[in-house]
Amino acid sequence: MSKILTIGEILVEIIATNKGNGFREAVPLIGPFPSGAPAIFIDQVGKLGQDCAIISRVGDDDFGWVNINRLTDDGVDVSGIEVVPQGTTGSAFVRYREDGSRAFVFNIRNSACGTIELSDEMITLIDGCTHMHVMGTALYAPSVVASILTAVERIKTAGGTVSFDPNLRPEILDSPGMREALQTVLSKTDLFMPSGEELFLFAEATTEDEAVAELLANGIKAIVVKRGAKGASYFDGKTTLDLEGFEVEEIDPTGAGDCFGATFVTFWLQGASPAEALRYANASGARAVTRAGPMEGASTKAELDNLITTQGKA
Amino acid sequence: MSKILTIGEILVEIIATNKGNGFREAVPLIGPFPSGAPAIFIDQVGKLGQDCAIISRVGDDDFGWVNINRLTDDGVDVSGIEVVPQGTTGSAFVRYREDGSRAFVFNIRNSACGTIELSDEMITLIDGCTHMHVMGTALYAPSVVASILTAVERIKTAGGTVSFDPNLRPEILDSPGMREALQTVLSKTDLFMPSGEELFLFAEATTEDEAVAELLANGIKAIVVKRGAKGASYFDGKTTLDLEGFEVEEIDPTGAGDCFGATFVTFWLQGASPAEALRYANASGARAVTRAGPMEGASTKAELDNLITTQGKA
Repeated sequence: MSKILTIGEILVEIIATNKGNGFREAVPLIGPFPSGAPAIFIDQVGKLGQDCAIISRVGDDDFGWVNINRLTDDGVDVSGIEVVPQGTTGSAFVRYREDGSRAFVFNIRNSACGTIELSDEMITLIDGCTHMHVMGTALYAPSVVASILTAVERIKTAGGTVSFDPNLRPEILDSPGMREALQTVLSKTDLFMPSGEELFLFAEATTEDEAVAELLANGIKAIVVKRGAKGASYFDGKTTLDLEGFEVEEIDPTGAGDCFGATFVTFWLQGASPAEALRYANASGARAVTRAGPMEGASTKAELDNLITTQGKA
Repeated sequence: MSKILTIGEILVEIIATNKGNGFREAVPLIGPFPSGAPAIFIDQVGKLGQDCAIISRVGDDDFGWVNINRLTDDGVDVSGIEVVPQGTTGSAFVRYREDGSRAFVFNIRNSACGTIELSDEMITLIDGCTHMHVMGTALYAPSVVASILTAVERIKTAGGTVSFDPNLRPEILDSPGMREALQTVLSKTDLFMPSGEELFLFAEATTEDEAVAELLANGIKAIVVKRGAKGASYFDGKTTLDLEGFEVEEIDPTGAGDCFGATFVTFWLQGASPAEALRYANASGARAVTRAGPMEGASTKAELDNLITTQGKA
């Protein structure tokens, strides 16, 4: 039985309901929504009925319980979430600007998940998992990076697999030791899932075909390039696939890439063909954007089947 | 020239717009509003045109600047507010329950203002002030308590005065060393401003008259008992005053006690009679509850004069 693990931030997200640049005056908001890229990812995995777990920390406050309750309801093993008595659950305020870009106020590094240390129980949890998903957003603090590298190393050594979604904020790339940590992760990665230009983060090449070839030559087994509403592509050296996206009304794109990735990894691990995994992943990303709130659009398999059938893509 | 100082938390407040118990699901919110009891207090002092300053810390984020900008606009010396580059500005989520009580999610101790250390510049700022207002809510962390005690000591030694609004959350009272810190503050207090039952926190007596007599005998020069919508009373051993409150529509009571206290202290320091100071303080508390947001109802002297005249209490 496969079991998917991820490690990283758990947040609540508070969303401004009107557009504008940031939070320097009182505006209408809605929240708290359960959030954090690794949490969204693992929630989508859980909703598909796949055994999975997350290692993180929250405060003993409503915002922590919003997340623990949701993840529990959706089938995620939450035994790796420590509730820190004097801690504060992380948060992200998000406001869309008129141009579609987003203004944020984050509380991550100074929140409960700003430090993640692996207890003996956590090591046992890691050793019970067969796949590790590394979310680039989670590389925000040295102890979290160290925990992720430990999990990658143990799971790979035990014969498991690793997927990696760079999902990087530019400021993270330049923090001390980050390039080395990313190279270590990449050297252990079986399934690499960059969005658009992220394909070139770890390649010398300047065209997509050459970058794909270069990364596969360096030992990555498969690459999925996410293209948002335009769909996605798959490459493994033998097979190349380009699938267009689904047509849906976009309400809130946050979390779509995480749901896409979770669905692809789940189907891939379960032995689906690349074409099937990519189709379900596209459907998952599409459904995710139709709901306000980063984790609200996570889907069951039945919901994905319904979208696929409705749009004649079965 | 008198100058009023306070030290303590600066927060943003996020308010749920519907009633209910806490934040375990997404609800409509509005914010960020500038907040924190010491910040509300000093903002009201500034709006009355009284020279004043606050010592605190915020993160370099929109929530910090919401506060710095508002306090600056309202005439507060903000040179004592340190902007911590990697810090997070404190926050308080507030939701009113059906019974009028409030559910909170706080981020104070792990926020930028969770630690306040006094630099040489801060000591110079303290030495330029003639009155220190101690807000009980600010006694949330050892370094903040120490900073407050330093300011109290220096200002008193230089011939200045101290006011003290206990404004205590019960859990603070039982933290280590807190009773001693409170006794130290009380022993230096000239003007004591408890709300209702807080009068008995530091007295053996069980009736109001006896508690007042006991506290005055212990060296406090004047006591103002806040009674919310019912008004307030003043005691100094010679004069006893009971003033009823103003009739206003209550929208949001948060911050009313802070505005009341700020207005009383300001008028008292400026040499107003106790009756005049109490009348303006009542008007200030009354106006504060008519606006949503903790600091939104702070008043200018003209606004207070207008309310006093309108209600025939001049």
